[in-house]
Amino acid sequence: MIFPFTAIVDQEEMKLGLILNVIDPNIGGVLIMGEKGTAKSTAVRALADLLPEIEVVKGCRFNCSPDGPFCSDCIERVNNNGSIEIEKRKMRVVELPLGVTEDRLVGTLDIEHAIKKGEKRFEPGILADANRNFLYVDEVNLLEDHIVDLLLDSAAMGVNTVEREGVSFVHPARFILVGTMNPEEGELRPQLLDRFGLCVQVNSLRDKALRVEILKRKAQFDDNPEEFHKKWKSEQEKLAEKIMDAKERLKSLNITESSLSAVVEITAELNLDGHRADIVMLKAARAFAAFNEKDEITREDIKAVAPFALRHRLKRLPFEDLSIEAEKLNAILERF
Amino acid sequence: MIFPFTAIVDQEEMKLGLILNVIDPNIGGVLIMGEKGTAKSTAVRALADLLPEIEVVKGCRFNCSPDGPFCSDCIERVNNNGSIEIEKRKMRVVELPLGVTEDRLVGTLDIEHAIKKGEKRFEPGILADANRNFLYVDEVNLLEDHIVDLLLDSAAMGVNTVEREGVSFVHPARFILVGTMNPEEGELRPQLLDRFGLCVQVNSLRDKALRVEILKRKAQFDDNPEEFHKKWKSEQEKLAEKIMDAKERLKSLNITESSLSAVVEITAELNLDGHRADIVMLKAARAFAAFNEKDEITREDIKAVAPFALRHRLKRLPFEDLSIEAEKLNAILERF
Amino acid sequence: MIFPFTAIVDQEEMKLGLILNVIDPNIGGVLIMGEKGTAKSTAVRALADLLPEIEVVKGCRFNCSPDGPFCSDCIERVNNNGSIEIEKRKMRVVELPLGVTEDRLVGTLDIEHAIKKGEKRFEPGILADANRNFLYVDEVNLLEDHIVDLLLDSAAMGVNTVEREGVSFVHPARFILVGTMNPEEGELRPQLLDRFGLCVQVNSLRDKALRVEILKRKAQFDDNPEEFHKKWKSEQEKLAEKIMDAKERLKSLNITESSLSAVVEITAELNLDGHRADIVMLKAARAFAAFNEKDEITREDIKAVAPFALRHRLKRLPFEDLSIEAEKLNAILERF
Amino acid sequence: MIFPFTAIVDQEEMKLGLILNVIDPNIGGVLIMGEKGTAKSTAVRALADLLPEIEVVKGCRFNCSPDGPFCSDCIERVNNNGSIEIEKRKMRVVELPLGVTEDRLVGTLDIEHAIKKGEKRFEPGILADANRNFLYVDEVNLLEDHIVDLLLDSAAMGVNTVEREGVSFVHPARFILVGTMNPEEGELRPQLLDRFGLCVQVNSLRDKALRVEILKRKAQFDDNPEEFHKKWKSEQEKLAEKIMDAKERLKSLNITESSLSAVVEITAELNLDGHRADIVMLKAARAFAAFNEKDEITREDIKAVAPFALRHRLKRLPFEDLSIEAEKLNAILERF
Amino acid sequence: MIFPFTAIVDQEEMKLGLILNVIDPNIGGVLIMGEKGTAKSTAVRALADLLPEIEVVKGCRFNCSPDGPFCSDCIERVNNNGSIEIEKRKMRVVELPLGVTEDRLVGTLDIEHAIKKGEKRFEPGILADANRNFLYVDEVNLLEDHIVDLLLDSAAMGVNTVEREGVSFVHPARFILVGTMNPEEGELRPQLLDRFGLCVQVNSLRDKALRVEILKRKAQFDDNPEEFHKKWKSEQEKLAEKIMDAKERLKSLNITESSLSAVVEITAELNLDGHRADIVMLKAARAFAAFNEKDEITREDIKAVAPFALRHRLKRLPFEDLSIEAEKLNAILERF
Amino acid sequence: MIFPFTAIVDQEEMKLGLILNVIDPNIGGVLIMGEKGTAKSTAVRALADLLPEIEVVKGCRFNCSPDGPFCSDCIERVNNNGSIEIEKRKMRVVELPLGVTEDRLVGTLDIEHAIKKGEKRFEPGILADANRNFLYVDEVNLLEDHIVDLLLDSAAMGVNTVEREGVSFVHPARFILVGTMNPEEGELRPQLLDRFGLCVQVNSLRDKALRVEILKRKAQFDDNPEEFHKKWKSEQEKLAEKIMDAKERLKSLNITESSLSAVVEITAELNLDGHRADIVMLKAARAFAAFNEKDEITREDIKAVAPFALRHRLKRLPFEDLSIEAEKLNAILERF
Repeated sequence: MIFPFTAIVDQEEMKLGLILNVIDPNIGGVLIMGEKGTAKSTAVRALADLLPEIEVVKGCRFNCSPDGPFCSDCIERVNNNGSIEIEKRKMRVVELPLGVTEDRLVGTLDIEHAIKKGEKRFEPGILADANRNFLYVDEVNLLEDHIVDLLLDSAAMGVNTVEREGVSFVHPARFILVGTMNPEEGELRPQLLDRFGLCVQVNSLRDKALRVEILKRKAQFDDNPEEFHKKWKSEQEKLAEKIMDAKERLKSLNITESSLSAVVEITAELNLDGHRADIVMLKAARAFAAFNEKDEITREDIKAVAPFALRHRLKRLPFEDLSIEAEKLNAILERF
Repeated sequence: MIFPFTAIVDQEEMKLGLILNVIDPNIGGVLIMGEKGTAKSTAVRALADLLPEIEVVKGCRFNCSPDGPFCSDCIERVNNNGSIEIEKRKMRVVELPLGVTEDRLVGTLDIEHAIKKGEKRFEPGILADANRNFLYVDEVNLLEDHIVDLLLDSAAMGVNTVEREGVSFVHPARFILVGTMNPEEGELRPQLLDRFGLCVQVNSLRDKALRVEILKRKAQFDDNPEEFHKKWKSEQEKLAEKIMDAKERLKSLNITESSLSAVVEITAELNLDGHRADIVMLKAARAFAAFNEKDEITREDIKAVAPFALRHRLKRLPFEDLSIEAEKLNAILERF
Repeated sequence: MIFPFTAIVDQEEMKLGLILNVIDPNIGGVLIMGEKGTAKSTAVRALADLLPEIEVVKGCRFNCSPDGPFCSDCIERVNNNGSIEIEKRKMRVVELPLGVTEDRLVGTLDIEHAIKKGEKRFEPGILADANRNFLYVDEVNLLEDHIVDLLLDSAAMGVNTVEREGVSFVHPARFILVGTMNPEEGELRPQLLDRFGLCVQVNSLRDKALRVEILKRKAQFDDNPEEFHKKWKSEQEKLAEKIMDAKERLKSLNITESSLSAVVEITAELNLDGHRADIVMLKAARAFAAFNEKDEITREDIKAVAPFALRHRLKRLPFEDLSIEAEKLNAILERF
Repeated sequence: MIFPFTAIVDQEEMKLGLILNVIDPNIGGVLIMGEKGTAKSTAVRALADLLPEIEVVKGCRFNCSPDGPFCSDCIERVNNNGSIEIEKRKMRVVELPLGVTEDRLVGTLDIEHAIKKGEKRFEPGILADANRNFLYVDEVNLLEDHIVDLLLDSAAMGVNTVEREGVSFVHPARFILVGTMNPEEGELRPQLLDRFGLCVQVNSLRDKALRVEILKRKAQFDDNPEEFHKKWKSEQEKLAEKIMDAKERLKSLNITESSLSAVVEITAELNLDGHRADIVMLKAARAFAAFNEKDEITREDIKAVAPFALRHRLKRLPFEDLSIEAEKLNAILERF
Repeated sequence: MIFPFTAIVDQEEMKLGLILNVIDPNIGGVLIMGEKGTAKSTAVRALADLLPEIEVVKGCRFNCSPDGPFCSDCIERVNNNGSIEIEKRKMRVVELPLGVTEDRLVGTLDIEHAIKKGEKRFEPGILADANRNFLYVDEVNLLEDHIVDLLLDSAAMGVNTVEREGVSFVHPARFILVGTMNPEEGELRPQLLDRFGLCVQVNSLRDKALRVEILKRKAQFDDNPEEFHKKWKSEQEKLAEKIMDAKERLKSLNITESSLSAVVEITAELNLDGHRADIVMLKAARAFAAFNEKDEITREDIKAVAPFALRHRLKRLPFEDLSIEAEKLNAILERF
Repeated sequence: MIFPFTAIVDQEEMKLGLILNVIDPNIGGVLIMGEKGTAKSTAVRALADLLPEIEVVKGCRFNCSPDGPFCSDCIERVNNNGSIEIEKRKMRVVELPLGVTEDRLVGTLDIEHAIKKGEKRFEPGILADANRNFLYVDEVNLLEDHIVDLLLDSAAMGVNTVEREGVSFVHPARFILVGTMNPEEGELRPQLLDRFGLCVQVNSLRDKALRVEILKRKAQFDDNPEEFHKKWKSEQEKLAEKIMDAKERLKSLNITESSLSAVVEITAELNLDGHRADIVMLKAARAFAAFNEKDEITREDIKAVAPFALRHRLKRLPFEDLSIEAEKLNAILERF
């Protein structure tokens, strides 16, 4: 049994970053920076647990949505049967272990099947499991570079194409990427940082009352999880509904010229590499507006999410704690 | 034949740390820090030897408890037979060798079985052996990082899930993790230190009388182990009973608001990362109260175990012998 | 669906470098230097998407042109049938993954086929896929040296010869090599730099209006790709036609003595290693003239492409930002 | 043919260290420190050659003693036949090669047998060969750490347990461990030093008469080994008998309170880690007393062996030739 | 189609070094030192292309000369048939790839053949391909030491002997070894340098007229290779004939006492290791005399080739650009 | 065809070192130190070529002597047939390649034979080839330590014992070990240096007349090897006979007390590790006396070979060119 998402004390920034990605998975994931022991993993699992089941093609090894896009198997299913059956599955948090190999990540040929049946078959990898789920990468800064590359490429393309010994297989790979890192234990290359949509921070709480509350809830949950879940049931349902509503509302929120200009107003003065920050900020603002049940994207929405979209894309000189660029950002947002 | 636990001279801190984990395995293991030649390994083996046999599902390769949770095999057993048979087994100390591979740790597919019988079968690893036993990791600081990660993840989840070539297998992995390290031979990453529940210290004794006593008992034991065991029999039985009673009493010890506040009173002033120390300290205090046959958790219980829960979580600057944080902790505990 | 090439805002230098290589693939590829997030990958894919289908030998695994040169398979086809059939294929962008092995790059024996059918067969590698396509190498400076060597050798020879266990296979390997590198993340050996035909630079734009335009186009495309494509259709067709015309015109553009002297006039004063720069500059100037629908190569054409051909071949002292050679080049081009 | 042990000139310390371990193998081996070319290997082989044959279970691959403990095979033998047959074997010096693998050391599965006969069988390793023999490790400081760990663990437990793919095999592994190291060629971790029972030193001799004697004996032996052996026969037999007598007498030598106190009198003042030195010194003194045909352990016996038990366990600061602890030891022994 | 050797502009030193080795392959190869982009690879290929076909034993996998020495296969051919058939083959430039394995270089057993046919057969390696051809090693200083050793051993012996699993195979391995290195990218061990017969230097040309000429010829060749070849045909034929004549004349050129003394006159004053320089210089002078259609070896011939034979064998102190030894050589040659 | 040993100009020290080892192989090999290009390899091959054929057991894969000791195969031959047949073989120079594996060196199981015939068979390694031959190790200082260890152990024991998967095989491994090293390219551990019997030095010659002579002989040999051999035939035969006579005489040369004292007189004053130098010097002096057709070992014989036995065993401080010990040796020998 999993600790309820709504029972997590404080850490609003992390919770919002995760929720915005659920509302619009195109935001491109979230990087959680912070100390050890701050319930990062718990929060992701809790959010997945809170969300309603999703519809998938029955029997599909890749969780294909009945609305597509389809994996090679499902395309065959459609071609053979003219239609597809549907089943419901709970969203999962798929973990990417440190030291994962490329084959394990993207999938490979099923050697055993090939030997026994004499036909080549695709053996799904972690990206297959992750489709339409959360992909959780703990301590992403300790991952090998070529794995991070593969991961972020798939995340960007939304599709995983594998070719091995003349067999090629394609399946959608649309997941919410959640990475964590403790900046004290090594940096991530700017190239890679840039490819996480948002970046949020978690800290351990120093406030005594909050600490007691955390300890109390944890002890209660450990002693009697069922009881604890019952107590938080209505909170959980309320949030789940609010998120699903926001997903729906998202489509009707228009991107206006003024929202475009507002985004660029913030980024143009900063010394950013590339243009990814602009589009991420725009999408996050739209998801934020939808979550708050608004009908249009306002300057406030943009201001609220700007730090999440920009923080990890600011240039930082070595040995500089708060960079000049970060101060510039603060100034920009203050007068915004 | 094993040296009796009760005949170990002094080293009360190590003995208590081990006993508390037996009383409440959710405390999360113990890290023993100290010099070579201080009977660390002997103590763990001796404690396992002292404890009564446990009930397991008959024939289960994972030592599943008849009360669950069950491994995939036992779930099948229940489904097929409606009931399960029970057998008794001695608790064991499973050792994790340096240089262990991931496959050896978590288990893998039984290739031979697959080739011969044409069906995939799970080959249990060290985590399977360790379920409901002690898992002893000598010189944990010399272990490779990704193995420590795997280990501590399993310890935290209490379950080991293995997926290999389309076959997935789940079994409980609830063990008492005992690590040892000699701090003179290399550090452990703070991230990893944090995930050991308690930390105790052992030292070699300088007192002549104690040394003579140690030497005498060791020589007596080496010369005639059976005789020596007979001599210590009643001491052993008394301690075993006391531990089993404490396990029973644990469930009835309530966590009061005042005990919660007392815990946070200690930790809030310290510069700790995360909240794991709070919950560990609370659980260790409860086990300590139970061991001392009390009916409630007192401030004294919390004070007694606080150093075990906090010592390895304090921030330490490089080249600092006794950290400022450690002095602060001493001051807090003194006036507590 | 792919973002239209003509809708890419600014970055004229990169776009021109790519187009010149399409017009004359003998120029020898292009190295794109610049920051992350500047649509380098998008641009290459977009250009491939814009170009018309090419004619290939039907069923050929190497995209052999019906006009040759032929792979070993096609030579057999011709010998057996006296003629070949033709099919049309879209040009593709083949990616070279970091960590690629030599076997994967150049191809190898099809072990499975050998075991089952008892005959050795060639298993095409990435160079086979790349024939007559784009070969895109992201962060070429992070590639292993012997892979870069293999790659550039094939690019130079236009042919890939593989010998494994007594079987030898030859196929054309004429591709447009596109490498990217962020100079902040490590250098490329001068030996390797020299073997890229051209070198262009991309930068992120600081101009607010341009940024808004980029953001707007990206958001429009993300929201409704079909609509967006319809809007840019005529621009796309116009450019495609212009490129194909230039390819045609190229053959009739004569290399005059004066153009030869003009090229050497620039390079002779510079401290260049070898003579590759001369021939690349000449070819790029001819392609540029053809693209601009001219009938002869003028000094202006040479001046326009000179920086692309020379920039990465100038000697640079360590820690020197703008090299003395670079200043010399500027001076030469100014008075040219 | 092997050079006779009794014909080795001088090097009394090394010879005594080896003999004490033969008398009481529980002393835990000996580490020989010294220069190259000092007949270390010759001495061990010569001692093994001198000793009478031992009784083993007939056909046992592990040299099990007819009195037990038994290997898994012998346990089966006893169960099947009710009794065991006996044969005699010469003691051997088993060498541990540098670069030995874990599988070669502890044994592994016999793959060939498994493939052919379809049953898993244990393939004994070096530890199996070494049971009840000498295990000689030349230049132990050049061995890999995890191999030294495995080795010393087995030596300490006296048993080797191997689990591979569901098969587990147990056999006794009681050997006399002899390591050599040249301290000029690298240190051994204190953790490992501590686990050798005794430590002795060898030096090359500077005395001319002794050198001539060594050279003469070696030349005589090389020219006519049979003749040489005949000449030394009675010396050899005398020593063999003396050793076997001492083994017998050992059991009757009581450990008195005063001998216990005498041991601690020496060690308590030294800055030793752990308590292993105490028990080793006590056992070595007892073996020394038995070798000298005494009826009780005297202070002289303890004083005689103290350096062997303590020398390698003294703390030493870097760059310190004769440590302060060593001087303290000398002072303690002088006034003892 | 290959650029004609005679159309290569300048670089006389490199061209001569190659030609001398063709005239007398016993000179022992040539090491070409120089910058990138200086047509080193082109020159070797062009020379191979220019030379007439050679006679080989029909079907021989090792290009055995009909006059012997023979490979194991050809010896069998002769034994079985009493005679051998002849075919003609073009000389080839065999490339040694960086990262080549020992098996690939010297050949190995044909595993597949062994499994299928049940007989062991030799699978030729690169040395087999190279017999009587050019073996081209680009950037020889980047090759692994043990490969360079193998290579130079074979070159010195003129034969490749392979023993694998009880099968031994011998074939001639007489090739013209051409290595290139850019001294800016790493040194070659003196041991290895010494084993290249000659050493020549190439530089890029700074003269404008020469550069224009290079560019013009390259552009003409690229545009219409057939036409270009026709234009250079007579030059090519003239040179080919001159080389073949020199090969013939070589046998009749006597080594006189005076030529021996002249060689030693140069080398005796230099601080050379070993005597290889003497014999190489003598042979190169003889080949040079033959190329220039002389009837005896003169002092001029020796003087002309001395730098090629000595340059890479002079001692050089670290950080010394022009060594004292080099200056001494210049002085010796001047007054010679 | 091989250059005649007697035609090698100068290098008397190297030639003598090799010859002494042929006369008494128990001397333990020779280490040749010197510059590249000094015919070290040629000399060994030439000496092997000069020596008469040896008698071996017919068909024996290990060149067993008909007088024993025997390999496992020959023991079986004797047991089965009661007698053995004899054949003659030329002595060979077996080379130990850099990068050789342990299996290749000591031999291993013949896997193929095992699979096909179902029985385990020993596949001889290089030590098998080397038995009763020369084993030549070029640049022994570049060999991996564990290989040098294996090599020198076998050389010392004269026997190679291999145990693999339950099969054990023994064969004699008595070879003349010839190592070469260029001290400029890395040291050898003193431990290993000590285990070469003798050490000789080679230098390239600076004398003009000698150089001319070397060059002339080499050129004559290269031009017409048969002719050259004819010219040196009688010299060769004379030397061969002298060596074989010395081998015979060796057995009758007595070791007197005075020769023992003379040896120690030299070594006792030097700061040598161990006693190996004494016995080697004695044996080399005896072989030298035999070679010079003397009837007893004189002080002159000992003086003559002392440098070969001692040079590589003298202690040397870092950065010291001629060590204090070397000077002491010179002084001792002068007044000897």
